[in-house]
Amino acid sequence: MSKTGSFAIELYCSKCGKTYALNEIHQLCECGAPLLVRYDLESAKAVLSADTFRNRPANLWRYKELLPVADDENIVSLGEGMTPILPLSKLGRKIGLPDLYMKDEGVIPTGTFKARGASVGVSRAKELGVKKLAMPTNGNAGAAWSIYSARAGIKAEIIMPEDAPKITRNECAAAGAELYLVRGLISDCGKIVAKHVKENGLYDASTLKEPYRIEGKKTMGLEIAEQFDWKLPDAIFYPTGGGVGIIGIYKALRELKELGIIEGKLPKLISVQAKGCAPIVRAFEKRKEASEFFEDSQTIAFGINVPKALGDFIVLKALYETGGTAVSVSDEEIIEAVKELAANEGTFVCPEGAANFAAAEKLVKSGFLKETDRVVLLNTGAGIKYPDTLTAEVPYLEKMV
Amino acid sequence: MSKTGSFAIELYCSKCGKTYALNEIHQLCECGAPLLVRYDLESAKAVLSADTFRNRPANLWRYKELLPVADDENIVSLGEGMTPILPLSKLGRKIGLPDLYMKDEGVIPTGTFKARGASVGVSRAKELGVKKLAMPTNGNAGAAWSIYSARAGIKAEIIMPEDAPKITRNECAAAGAELYLVRGLISDCGKIVAKHVKENGLYDASTLKEPYRIEGKKTMGLEIAEQFDWKLPDAIFYPTGGGVGIIGIYKALRELKELGIIEGKLPKLISVQAKGCAPIVRAFEKRKEASEFFEDSQTIAFGINVPKALGDFIVLKALYETGGTAVSVSDEEIIEAVKELAANEGTFVCPEGAANFAAAEKLVKSGFLKETDRVVLLNTGAGIKYPDTLTAEVPYLEKMV
Repeated sequence: MSKTGSFAIELYCSKCGKTYALNEIHQLCECGAPLLVRYDLESAKAVLSADTFRNRPANLWRYKELLPVADDENIVSLGEGMTPILPLSKLGRKIGLPDLYMKDEGVIPTGTFKARGASVGVSRAKELGVKKLAMPTNGNAGAAWSIYSARAGIKAEIIMPEDAPKITRNECAAAGAELYLVRGLISDCGKIVAKHVKENGLYDASTLKEPYRIEGKKTMGLEIAEQFDWKLPDAIFYPTGGGVGIIGIYKALRELKELGIIEGKLPKLISVQAKGCAPIVRAFEKRKEASEFFEDSQTIAFGINVPKALGDFIVLKALYETGGTAVSVSDEEIIEAVKELAANEGTFVCPEGAANFAAAEKLVKSGFLKETDRVVLLNTGAGIKYPDTLTAEVPYLEKMV
Repeated sequence: MSKTGSFAIELYCSKCGKTYALNEIHQLCECGAPLLVRYDLESAKAVLSADTFRNRPANLWRYKELLPVADDENIVSLGEGMTPILPLSKLGRKIGLPDLYMKDEGVIPTGTFKARGASVGVSRAKELGVKKLAMPTNGNAGAAWSIYSARAGIKAEIIMPEDAPKITRNECAAAGAELYLVRGLISDCGKIVAKHVKENGLYDASTLKEPYRIEGKKTMGLEIAEQFDWKLPDAIFYPTGGGVGIIGIYKALRELKELGIIEGKLPKLISVQAKGCAPIVRAFEKRKEASEFFEDSQTIAFGINVPKALGDFIVLKALYETGGTAVSVSDEEIIEAVKELAANEGTFVCPEGAANFAAAEKLVKSGFLKETDRVVLLNTGAGIKYPDTLTAEVPYLEKMV
């Protein structure tokens, strides 16, 4: 069995610090907080440099020393990662941010960034001998975990709100997952999953209830660093629901810094939420350490309709420690941004991704960002997964005889 | 203006051989056949080797010396290309082809391989000063050309059958294209486009009516060669509608051979069609040089519902000269293949892509392929663009109190 060379050594609690062995199944810490993977960065430093990664295949497994999978044969991959970074020159100039970029996570298996967490999460589940997993989802994560589980030969039970994007149902069903709908929110689905996990001894793949999905999301941060030739941008915008991506990016950048591969100040991390579901924004404005459940949440950006995230305190820490901020935008602003991005830059993005652009415009106006800033917007998914965001009235032409 | 180093020197007719200047707009040859791009491969040979491409960014512009764009600033890119090649180990073993792979063109901007032709085609249109283009489409090509035209600042008029995938309407509309629907087939749309082109002096971006789309498709062949370390597989399966992809792959492999970058026999090229629209298969069975219009064509694999392709004679030549073949599969076999691929390999593909797998199974049974063959199936698009291929009956669970 060929070894990946992973420097992962143990799990540790993001809140109380308690450690757990890596070669056993662990979900949350006894204290109820998420577990994270610790790497032996001291040893890794002696081996890894920017050059290590340069000539490897263009997928996230190029960073396998900084991922938690021990054996190559457990890697479950569909070629995910190294998504493009696109200059948004026209719109950037228009809003006063000429050095504006989008990292486009629509160009990835399943069409959303959820593929990263699923690839690494399912790989580790396979390595740990998991036979069946369960998770609640707003659609895209469930689709990705179904697809990767199918490739791994693991059974997946997926529970999603009936309002989740329809296409994600098809993906789960095609992949042979056991799929259920609920008339409610992802938090309602989560309660049912918790019950099933307990009753049937399943592996709980809920957001942050297993420690490996975040390691997959981490690779977005590693890639941003490498794609800008290890010179970091000034700010990274991230549409925040469960917040795993922003936690992952923050973890990636800190690890790279400890390895000496990057230097200087970290980018300002900026959480973008919908006005109809903005628990992190509310908490940030009051400088709270954690968020409160956002009652009656509603937004067309379904992927960030998460009224209370388990990892909220880590997200907020990332914002505070990088000098970032949290911004909310309206559904109208989101739809307008979807259109502006497609018509001007040819980037047809999901509502969550478009929210970033609306938020960036606000932060230029407010003076938080300045014209010389290099700014990266993280688009989390392809617009084609959201057929109902826009409606087109299309005229007919008659056939010629 | 920084130069790409392109070795393109002229256009030539695929039928009569007449040549045309590269720096002018040309559509079809005077004789009515498609024009192709000729490169100065003699000069290129002195400069290019496999090593030339090794360390370049993972998109199709890594092959810019073998593409027709002269100036870097005319490149219109969304990061397309270097799509993953995935082993299909489980299903390969099951059907008696253990060395089976899929090149997954779902992992590309707009979710289909049409992005390649659009990126190169629109880039050249920009370089030639085109202000407005027009094209008929079965949906995905129109979406891709709309998106890339938006990025380039070119106006696009797109005409598609009303049965084309709904999501492609949204893509065109979001990108600001002038979109029309027709109650008919792509051939009916083509007639209207021809009229508009003539009346309004538009650039005709119809399949093979401009010479550059095929150069974009060519990069699939270049990538397959590079991704297998310049040792070619034994067969490549390609779902054939207009056939530009197979023509492009054939052109790519012949150019690489002339450059001395690859050696030996070319892979058998295999055209896959739906039983309900199989003009190439009919022509191939009778060893004809060209196909006949396939009356009352119908298939769920909408992208290959092309009753008569302008480049049919080039497709057939590619099949004959590589010792390939043409196979048709039923819609039922296609749907079954979509399910098998998703449930076993985690690859959720479009019906056109799935048709390849059904065809491969047939060609193993018939003895055309042998167990030791290395075979590549080209999946032309993501399953998520086809929400109606599969229907899922999903049970509900009650909310917990």
